[in-house]
Amino acid sequence: MDQTRYQVGVAQLKKIDGVGGEKVIESLKTIAPDLGNYIIEFAFGDIYPREGLSLQERELITITSLLTTGGCEPQLDVHINGALNVGILPEKIIEAFIQCIPYTGFPKVLNAVAVAKEVFAARDAHNQ
Amino acid sequence: MDQTRYQVGVAQLKKIDGVGGEKVIESLKTIAPDLGNYIIEFAFGDIYPREGLSLQERELITITSLLTTGGCEPQLDVHINGALNVGILPEKIIEAFIQCIPYTGFPKVLNAVAVAKEVFAARDAHNQ
Amino acid sequence: MDQTRYQVGVAQLKKIDGVGGEKVIESLKTIAPDLGNYIIEFAFGDIYPREGLSLQERELITITSLLTTGGCEPQLDVHINGALNVGILPEKIIEAFIQCIPYTGFPKVLNAVAVAKEVFAARDAHNQ
Amino acid sequence: MDQTRYQVGVAQLKKIDGVGGEKVIESLKTIAPDLGNYIIEFAFGDIYPREGLSLQERELITITSLLTTGGCEPQLDVHINGALNVGILPEKIIEAFIQCIPYTGFPKVLNAVAVAKEVFAARDAHNQ
Amino acid sequence: MDQTRYQVGVAQLKKIDGVGGEKVIESLKTIAPDLGNYIIEFAFGDIYPREGLSLQERELITITSLLTTGGCEPQLDVHINGALNVGILPEKIIEAFIQCIPYTGFPKVLNAVAVAKEVFAARDAHNQ
Amino acid sequence: MDQTRYQVGVAQLKKIDGVGGEKVIESLKTIAPDLGNYIIEFAFGDIYPREGLSLQERELITITSLLTTGGCEPQLDVHINGALNVGILPEKIIEAFIQCIPYTGFPKVLNAVAVAKEVFAARDAHNQ
Repeated sequence: MDQTRYQVGVAQLKKIDGVGGEKVIESLKTIAPDLGNYIIEFAFGDIYPREGLSLQERELITITSLLTTGGCEPQLDVHINGALNVGILPEKIIEAFIQCIPYTGFPKVLNAVAVAKEVFAARDAHNQ
Repeated sequence: MDQTRYQVGVAQLKKIDGVGGEKVIESLKTIAPDLGNYIIEFAFGDIYPREGLSLQERELITITSLLTTGGCEPQLDVHINGALNVGILPEKIIEAFIQCIPYTGFPKVLNAVAVAKEVFAARDAHNQ
Repeated sequence: MDQTRYQVGVAQLKKIDGVGGEKVIESLKTIAPDLGNYIIEFAFGDIYPREGLSLQERELITITSLLTTGGCEPQLDVHINGALNVGILPEKIIEAFIQCIPYTGFPKVLNAVAVAKEVFAARDAHNQ
Repeated sequence: MDQTRYQVGVAQLKKIDGVGGEKVIESLKTIAPDLGNYIIEFAFGDIYPREGLSLQERELITITSLLTTGGCEPQLDVHINGALNVGILPEKIIEAFIQCIPYTGFPKVLNAVAVAKEVFAARDAHNQ
Repeated sequence: MDQTRYQVGVAQLKKIDGVGGEKVIESLKTIAPDLGNYIIEFAFGDIYPREGLSLQERELITITSLLTTGGCEPQLDVHINGALNVGILPEKIIEAFIQCIPYTGFPKVLNAVAVAKEVFAARDAHNQ
Repeated sequence: MDQTRYQVGVAQLKKIDGVGGEKVIESLKTIAPDLGNYIIEFAFGDIYPREGLSLQERELITITSLLTTGGCEPQLDVHINGALNVGILPEKIIEAFIQCIPYTGFPKVLNAVAVAKEVFAARDAHNQ
């Protein structure tokens, strides 16, 4: 295992996805630990720390890709939290989903907004 | 037909997609003119002029959604041109595609980069 | 907001999707009211009232598109109800899903039939 | 090989897809003849001749499913021809594609309309 | 109904998917019995018993296709069980999912691994 | 750049995809060289050399995933060649595609078989 990439990845994962990201990695420990390592080393160690896009732009792109793929509600939950963690306002996340309507149709946007609604509510409840 | 939405849409379409967008609308005139109208009125009249995202952010989101859907190479061509037209640098477009790797896999990213390569070359040739 | 398109859309939405459609719009009020407006104005105000296809044909096309996209079970629930509301018989809905087998494979058809089974049962329970 | 299903399927294939369908089967003879047989026996022998939907409804459902899947332009070509062969008017095919906009977004609809435009032109040229 | 194909299919279904497959067919009896028949006759009667691939290879291909389609968690459950039933080790199923990362991205792999985790746990609980 | 992962990846890429894979990497040099590096380091350096699946099994899984995604014809070309390069017989590749019919429907299988037909013919021409 490449310690440098792994350490960079863990730091990025914490900064972006926080508890949600760590839970995903934790849940993989008994079943597919290498999958967790690749997420940390490749997605968060290689891709996220690159120059050329801000973290906010990377999260905008990520939640767009997840909405468009469809069936990725658990990952949308993690990355809507990630988008909020790096400072994107809730209204902007909704606006990004609305921008997708002409390209994906309404149903996938409705599914993504439903996840956002739950994420926003959970964070509001937690902050009270 | 709603003249206001239509006029706003035409202006947006020209600003963003330029000649490429107009060609799409033109090609629909004999076969499905209403489809062209809906693209202008709804996509470019209702969605693009909304507040909450910059035009650059809207184009980043659009090319991400097209890459992720797959099989939308003609539309990627139009919107990579659109992204450049609103001031996104070529390197940033490539960086956005690279950010998608963990979420879509390599093949869709390769297809999108191939379209970008042709678009960049065509614009370079035209500018010489 | 375009009152005419909106009013046409609301009337169509009520006729087709009934309570289910209104619940979707209602659920968007606190999180993304514009998304609800676009569904009413564009999907139900612009597209559904067009000539050229009967409402039954529009619902057949819609449930086919939702089945084929996949991951749209909540929308399939609304539009299977919509199909029944505009007079399509349950057996015909199942037959439409069976027609998709050669084009989508069995899994997506199985998922759609599972939603239909629940919708038919819920309406039977309600009618007793 | 089940002669009855095969013969029913060949007759259906000829009636619906005509020359286009036969070319697909012919092209498979040297590479994957069983695939051609399954298309005839299962898709056209088992599914198409079922009761419950008219041939026109089956073709409407098929072209909707192909548009929504994406990347199926060769099959859309065959089945747009099929839709015309069983008596669906060109305007109705376009209308069916327009009905998909809210569910698939514009890009897939644009791709399907482009195929329809070529099919209609080829048949017009042939009929002159 | 073709008795030979049906009987071959039922035998294959029992060997591969066991109780899970039979439950799927059973659940279709009141809503879409023909769909269950086609699964037995075509998928398990025509396709699975063919020469050219071992049953283990067929299940590897099937779970790969289901992971890649997305939104097919119920079918992945049945066929991860099927893969184990024909002698594929749990580690190899996970390894097959990991091989998909470069082609599908991480989210669909995470969803498939989550289903595998539940299937493995359910079988462990049952075997104790 | 991690020289070890890169060197392992280059060796794997040569063994599996041969000239086709090198052409892909070469074509990226002027537009997105990092994308080429990630394909080598991550896909071929991290994933392919893992234990638990034979190279033949990895290529079976890869072509299945590409067929199922759809719109990945250029990548199918490279990996059908890859499958042949690691010793899978042409008939077995076709058989793998046929196994996908129940899970993806016929159109995607037809598209994949069309690519295989061209690949097989090109290699036959080259070998004469």
